[in-house]
Amino acid sequence: MRRIVIGLEYRGQGFCGWQSQPQGCAVQDAVEAAVGAIADAKTTVTAAGRTDTGVHAALQVAHFDVSVERPLTAWVRGVNSHLPEGVAVLWARETDASFHARFAALQRGYRYVLLNHPVRPGLNAGLVGWHHRPLDADAMNRAALHLIGQHDFSAFRAAECQAKSPVKELRRAQVERRGEYLLCDFQADGFLHHMVRNIMGSLIQVGAGMQPAEWLGELLTSRDRTLAAPTFDAAGLYLTHIRYPAHFALPEHSDRWPFAT
Amino acid sequence: MRRIVIGLEYRGQGFCGWQSQPQGCAVQDAVEAAVGAIADAKTTVTAAGRTDTGVHAALQVAHFDVSVERPLTAWVRGVNSHLPEGVAVLWARETDASFHARFAALQRGYRYVLLNHPVRPGLNAGLVGWHHRPLDADAMNRAALHLIGQHDFSAFRAAECQAKSPVKELRRAQVERRGEYLLCDFQADGFLHHMVRNIMGSLIQVGAGMQPAEWLGELLTSRDRTLAAPTFDAAGLYLTHIRYPAHFALPEHSDRWPFAT
Repeated sequence: MRRIVIGLEYRGQGFCGWQSQPQGCAVQDAVEAAVGAIADAKTTVTAAGRTDTGVHAALQVAHFDVSVERPLTAWVRGVNSHLPEGVAVLWARETDASFHARFAALQRGYRYVLLNHPVRPGLNAGLVGWHHRPLDADAMNRAALHLIGQHDFSAFRAAECQAKSPVKELRRAQVERRGEYLLCDFQADGFLHHMVRNIMGSLIQVGAGMQPAEWLGELLTSRDRTLAAPTFDAAGLYLTHIRYPAHFALPEHSDRWPFAT
Repeated sequence: MRRIVIGLEYRGQGFCGWQSQPQGCAVQDAVEAAVGAIADAKTTVTAAGRTDTGVHAALQVAHFDVSVERPLTAWVRGVNSHLPEGVAVLWARETDASFHARFAALQRGYRYVLLNHPVRPGLNAGLVGWHHRPLDADAMNRAALHLIGQHDFSAFRAAECQAKSPVKELRRAQVERRGEYLLCDFQADGFLHHMVRNIMGSLIQVGAGMQPAEWLGELLTSRDRTLAAPTFDAAGLYLTHIRYPAHFALPEHSDRWPFAT
């Protein structure tokens, strides 16, 4: 068997998240069907991060095992010719059995793209989050700093979260204004279910002046999900970075999406 | 009667262009229905530019006449609550009867966003054009300069074009690389049907090294549509600028779309 690793991008709209569903509406279902068509065999594809319904990927990394020998371009152009238009394989590499898209990942990164404008999105509806009142990005950035480090993130964890431990190491949390948008970056060894969207909801309360920056630290310490803000819209959330041990020599991000820089 | 002028943004996918169609699939149909709901009367909406199927607007300007008195926010937030998610009114002003969205416009601008990458778009399918081989943006920019000025643009005019004259004054034509994208800007007093997409097709032949930069000048002089390249994909085309006489004091562009800068 050969282990193939691929980088993917996809638009969350029109899919029911990454993880395979009986009705076949998941990105994983589309990718497995397309890979299977090239591999001439039913193939399971395992991804670095199981994104929710409506969440996008500027870079998702996944692997699968095949017995056939194909040039690497078959796993890019060949698979793309079988994928729906909202998904594309960006690159493919052959790797060894020590690689696992999910368990070998050392770090993941998400970017939340928030349109901060009185008028709701039109041109990029579904591709950005939205808050209609002016937000103080500096206050949000100060608030985000309270989350950096290894902590129990139970205050920002969905009830359905299946992670064994609520402890994650958040290595980067940054909010930056770019014109009418706020770009909010989060990097960690891993994320709990809804963690970024729950943090975003609370950061927006700080940005709107409803809570002080220190509130994020208080929420974290409380470990109480009921104290933090509701889960924010999936539309602005992008999986953007995945880091593996250096010897795998894989791209960590993609720069071909509009909000890459 | 009061004349109201609005700025709009919309995603071309899912609409059959700006101009009203019997089956109601046009952006104009959606806007007229939404404005009519607020105005409590059937209302005709006239736009600066009649964009084709699949063409987007970062800024479209339109006007309509109403007999009711409403606060300006009704023509923004009220209308938006009746519009489908791919369209939004950005602003509204009251103006006088001397304003006409189409005939008072002095200049229009389009930006073509072209993904220049071996892999087809996934995340932003339908929102960008695509060419898979590396393009020489400098050569394309030099070629575009041959088009600047007042010329007969018959070489880049669709057979169905209804304009009285093929003569337009192209004031800006510029191609610039931005990472994996080429941003191609065109500003003129007006555009012929398919003019930007036809120019793009020919510029890409120059960028790919199939033709020299001077070829654009030769095509222009020939006035022969059959010599130029086929019409390029609508997906990457955005109406971005509309200029009216200064005393109307209207915004000329919008900076809340991802490729604004």
